[in-house]
This record gives sequence, C-alpha cells and structure tokens, in this order.
Amino acid sequence: MFPNRLAVLGSTGSIGQQTLDVARRHPDKIKVIALAAGENVNLLQKQAAEFKPRLVSCAGRSLVCGDSVCLPPEQMARHPDLDIVVIAVPGGVGLAPALAAARAGKIIALANKECLVAAGEILLDEAEKFGAHIRPVDSEHSAIWQCLAGETTRPEKLILTASGGPFRNYPLEKIESVTPEQALAHPSWKMGKKVTVDSATLMNKGLEVIEAHRLYGIPYERIEVVIHPQSIIHSMVEFADGAVKAQLSPPDMRLPIQYALSYPDRWGNPDLPRADWPKIGRLDFSAPDLDRFPCLKLAIEAGKKGNTFPAVLAAADEEAVNLFLDRKITFGDIALLVERTLEAHIPVGSLSLESIAAAEQWARQKVLELARSL
Amino acid sequence: MFPNRLAVLGSTGSIGQQTLDVARRHPDKIKVIALAAGENVNLLQKQAAEFKPRLVSCAGRSLVCGDSVCLPPEQMARHPDLDIVVIAVPGGVGLAPALAAARAGKIIALANKECLVAAGEILLDEAEKFGAHIRPVDSEHSAIWQCLAGETTRPEKLILTASGGPFRNYPLEKIESVTPEQALAHPSWKMGKKVTVDSATLMNKGLEVIEAHRLYGIPYERIEVVIHPQSIIHSMVEFADGAVKAQLSPPDMRLPIQYALSYPDRWGNPDLPRADWPKIGRLDFSAPDLDRFPCLKLAIEAGKKGNTFPAVLAAADEEAVNLFLDRKITFGDIALLVERTLEAHIPVGSLSLESIAAAEQWARQKVLELARSL
Repeated sequence: MFPNRLAVLGSTGSIGQQTLDVARRHPDKIKVIALAAGENVNLLQKQAAEFKPRLVSCAGRSLVCGDSVCLPPEQMARHPDLDIVVIAVPGGVGLAPALAAARAGKIIALANKECLVAAGEILLDEAEKFGAHIRPVDSEHSAIWQCLAGETTRPEKLILTASGGPFRNYPLEKIESVTPEQALAHPSWKMGKKVTVDSATLMNKGLEVIEAHRLYGIPYERIEVVIHPQSIIHSMVEFADGAVKAQLSPPDMRLPIQYALSYPDRWGNPDLPRADWPKIGRLDFSAPDLDRFPCLKLAIEAGKKGNTFPAVLAAADEEAVNLFLDRKITFGDIALLVERTLEAHIPVGSLSLESIAAAEQWARQKVLELARSL
Repeated sequence: MFPNRLAVLGSTGSIGQQTLDVARRHPDKIKVIALAAGENVNLLQKQAAEFKPRLVSCAGRSLVCGDSVCLPPEQMARHPDLDIVVIAVPGGVGLAPALAAARAGKIIALANKECLVAAGEILLDEAEKFGAHIRPVDSEHSAIWQCLAGETTRPEKLILTASGGPFRNYPLEKIESVTPEQALAHPSWKMGKKVTVDSATLMNKGLEVIEAHRLYGIPYERIEVVIHPQSIIHSMVEFADGAVKAQLSPPDMRLPIQYALSYPDRWGNPDLPRADWPKIGRLDFSAPDLDRFPCLKLAIEAGKKGNTFPAVLAAADEEAVNLFLDRKITFGDIALLVERTLEAHIPVGSLSLESIAAAEQWARQKVLELARSL
C-alpha cells in the first residue's frame, strides 16, 4: 500500500509547507511526486531540489527544476501515477484541480474551503461518480471524521468548536475599528492572512458549518458552533444515544494533514505535540455571540438558502477581507459588505460551475461597488 | 440479528436495574430471558412479573415466578438460548458466572470490577479460547472502547478520568476521620455503597487502571489518571500521532450499559441526557494527589506486581470498606489496612483460580486481624 504517491498543490503556502514537513518525517510512507505553487518560485525551487518531484507547476509559468516535467495543476491532479492529491491552494483556484482529481478517482486531501462551500454539491457528486475519496484537512472536519471512525449509525449532531478569535472578549463598540494587525494576531493557530481574518470575524467558522453540512450530510439545525477558546477540542460528534466523541490535541495543523495521509492508520510522529492534561488545566465552552460575530449568522443563512448563495458569501468575503487588509474598509465593514451583497443576490437557474463562476464574479464586483459608496 | 437474548445477573442492583431500564426502552431489540439476584426477592419477583424471563435465580434459593425455571447463575450464564450475559453481580461472586459465560462463547457485558482485577488474565484467556467477547460496562472502559472503534493502530496511552470524589478539596488532615455518610455523598455519580466509598478513596480508579491494563493490553506506564471533577469526559485515548479521542456525556450509567448491548450500533434513547456545552461551561483537569489518595498508588503497584496481588488488593479493600461502613475503622484506615495486607502477601506459585481464591480468603482474614490490632 505504501508509499503513497503524493501531489501537493499549493506547496509553498502554510498548509503546503506543513504537508511537506509530514512527508519529510515519513519518507518510507510518502513519496512526493508533484509540487505546484503560485508566486513563490524560490521556495518552490528549494522544495523541488529537496523532494525531486517528477512534476512541477508554478502558476502557469514554465520552470526548470532538474528533471521535473512542467504541467498545469489540473493535468497534474489527474496524473495516473498519483494516489493522493493535496489541495492546499487557497480560494477559487482550488476548484479546477479538485474536480480534475475527483474525476480521476483520486484520494483528495482537501484543505481548500471555497471548493466545498461554493461548489461542494458538484465536487461531491463527481467524487462519488468516479470513486474518489475526499478527506478533510481542516482540523474541525478532521476531528469529526476521526470521531466517526468505526461508527455504523449516522450522527445526531455535529459540534464545531471555535476559538472565538482575538475579539471574543473585546469591547463590542471597538470591534468595528480594529486594525489588520489586531485581526491577524490569532490566539491559538498560526495560519495565512485571509483565514486569520476570517477567524476573527467567525466567517471561517461559518464556512466550516457549510463544509460540515456538505461533507457529512447533517442538516444545519443539527450543527452547533461552540466557542472554545483553548482550541484543544477540535470538534465533537453527538450520537443517537447521547454519547459524544471529541478529538483533542494541542493546535498543530500537521496532525490533521498527516491523518489525511495515514488514514485509517496513525503514524508515530515525534514532531507532533502531546497534550499534558494537568497543564492544560481547563477547557471552556460558551455560545457564540451573534451580535459580535454577524458573519457566522450570514454564513449559516447562505448555507440554508443554497444554490449560489454560499459561492457569493465566500467570494464577497474574500474581496471584503482584501479591502480590509489594504485598509480600504473597516473590520466592521466586512460583515456589512457581505450582508448587502447576499441581500442583492438573485440566483440564476440551477447550480452549475458556470452559474457559480458568474455569481462569484458578480459578488466581487458588488463588494467593490458597495465599498466605494460606504 | 435482534432481538438480543439477554441474561441479567445481579438484576436488583444499581447496574442491573438500569440494564432493565434500557431493556424496557428497547423491547424490539432486547429480550430478557434470564434474571438472577441476591437477597432482594421482592424486587426480583416484580422484575420477573414484568419481563417474564424463562430463567430466574435468587441466591440459590428456589423461587416461583410464573413459568420461569429456577437455575443457579453459572448454569444460567451458559444457557444456549442466550446471546448476551450482563454480569452486574458485585464482588468475587461474579467470577464463576463470568467464566461460565466465557466458556460458552457468549457476549459478556461486564460490570463487575473484581473479575477483571483478580482473575482478568484467566477470564480473558478463556474468553479468547472459546470465542467469547467481553464488553465493558464501566463508563471509563466503555469510553476507551468507544474511542478505539475504527482505529487500526494500538493506542499509545490511555487517560482515565476520575471525579476525585467528595474529598478532592477536603482538608487533608480531616480526611482521615470522615464518616460513612460523607463518603457516600458522591458529587456526580449515583452508585452502590462499596463503589461510592471506593470512589472517595480513589481505589475505584486504581482498580480501573488494572482493568484497563488487562482489557487493552497497555502497560501501566502508559495509563494516566487525571482528576476531572465534572465527570463529563469519561476517559480518553492518545494515539501515535498525538491525536486524543474522548467520549463525553452527562454522567448516566445507562449509556455505557446500552452501548454494550447495541455495539457497534447506537440506539436512540430519549431517556439518556444530552450535553449542553455552553451550560456545562468548563471542564477541569488536574493531577491526582497521591498523598491524599494512597489507594490509587497501592492499586497501580499491585497491578504491576501481578500474580495474586491484584486479588489481594480487591479483597482487602472490600473487607476494609465493609469495616468502615460498619464504623469499625476510620476512612484513613482503609488505605492503611490494604497497604499492610499487600505488604504481608506472598504469592504461592503461578496464577490459578485456586491460588486467587486462597489469596482472597487470606487477605480478608488479614484485614480483620490487622483491624483488631489498630
């Protein structure tokens, strides 16, 4: 069965680099066959020198890395010599290679939220049709997946934990005007800028609710978000008998990444941190304050509406977060722009890749237009 | 597959009654075929009138309950018409029917600690030889079992949680002289007297460490006890990748009882409580104070020594707890008598049912003798 032949799409990003950390630790179990990245050519070349992949791709540019063959990401994702495709490309560009991998029947380790949020129904349908397997890399969905192992009955409820981000206890009247620096100081996870801001608004958790709904087929009414500031419980599942299972560990993305590669086994890894229970001391839980975090409510509403609403939500949020990071709008404007964009959205016909792309483009334009008139 | 034909041995005790609660809730899935009890003839007759078992047994006495046939517990446990035998008899008398059920290749839902502690090696060997399955009913071992479902690799560590009992924060100098009434006021679980006192001394947790070692083959060095006063996390398992899985729920023994009957499925049961996370609010963890709870240390040491030491531990503790409940000795004397009895014990030859019975008898006499000279 091993080694697993791996493609890492988005290898120079945070998840991509951590995936290669895991691969480096398990040369007997993982063979990195393909690497794809965006702008960071230097790091990609370094990674290629170390892992000697047979295929490389750098945002469409052709690149000379030893004997590697240059391929566009979609072609890479369906290459016959691959077992597992790690989709660690952020944003909408992850969808095309994810679909290609699904249609080629690959195991997909999915670290891209937007794919599932905007086009989850299509991606999951294609995966099922072609015998592909989608394994979550997100810590929350991985936790749920781990808790479902060995269970024969459908869960009754999913409980997604949220750290609550840096503004969990911040004075409500001041949240409106926090700076990008404040929003980027996440208390428990080290992540990319976009997802860190999304964690501060709880949009990230809202997107995860939509993902959980899609991945596990649980109605929105049975997905609960609980604020858990220590980020030790990564999520929980409640069953028909009232039993709850949780997956816990000190926050480290390499654990869910590795589990997506090792499943159903577990691999020893001394790099991964161990929980020290007396030292952890306590775990707290509270209900999320939806006045403080309107993005969470917006996301769940968009999820319930379905069709292109989740795509509009994700695209509008991405655009709004960029405006915030560029200091063009306030922190509070993120939710405002997303809300107004969702209000203005009218889906056209039934869901398709084309209608999703059109809705996303419309949403980005709408956010820019609304931002100008703020 | 269903209904499961059930024998409940110890049907009038706390676990036995709760087992019948579960059976009452699932008449489509469970058929109570046999009931056995000790002294409580009235309740047994009531239970027999309700469940109409084909077999009854009342501490050897013959008993007329409608058309039921009267059988001694061991014969009952191996009856060919049974699928699952619930061993809810407390103390050493549980061993004979447990062994009979094991040799008849039954599914054994085991709620008797002493069987596993004193004669676990023999019972597990017999179960393996005759294709019997032992399912834990204890909330801690059930939690571990639930967390191991679907896992292909051996766990690295077991983390047994302990409420810490009523004396977790009690002034150390006063613990020595607490009354039976104080010791019986357990903060989170309703249980029988013996196990409630054992929870107050943490002997109960020590016995559970030995059970966990036997059931899951994990060395004592990798079984950690953590004080968790809320009794919401029933135990945890750590894997080679640092991932921890926990089973959580408001304390209610009917959950592990039901899971031992429903495994690998889960049955809906509105009687079972649901966790409300914001209301639960927090979960605490701390290291157990071994000065406060010497019984925990004694139990782990006896477990490590093996042979008849665990049998002596359990028998000495049972005798000492009875003396305490009869106000013949102080609370602090329980640990003292157990410790001195263990110190005086010299195992004879290799482990056998005979050497266990002899060691237990010796231990009980030794405790009485030591108590007289206190």
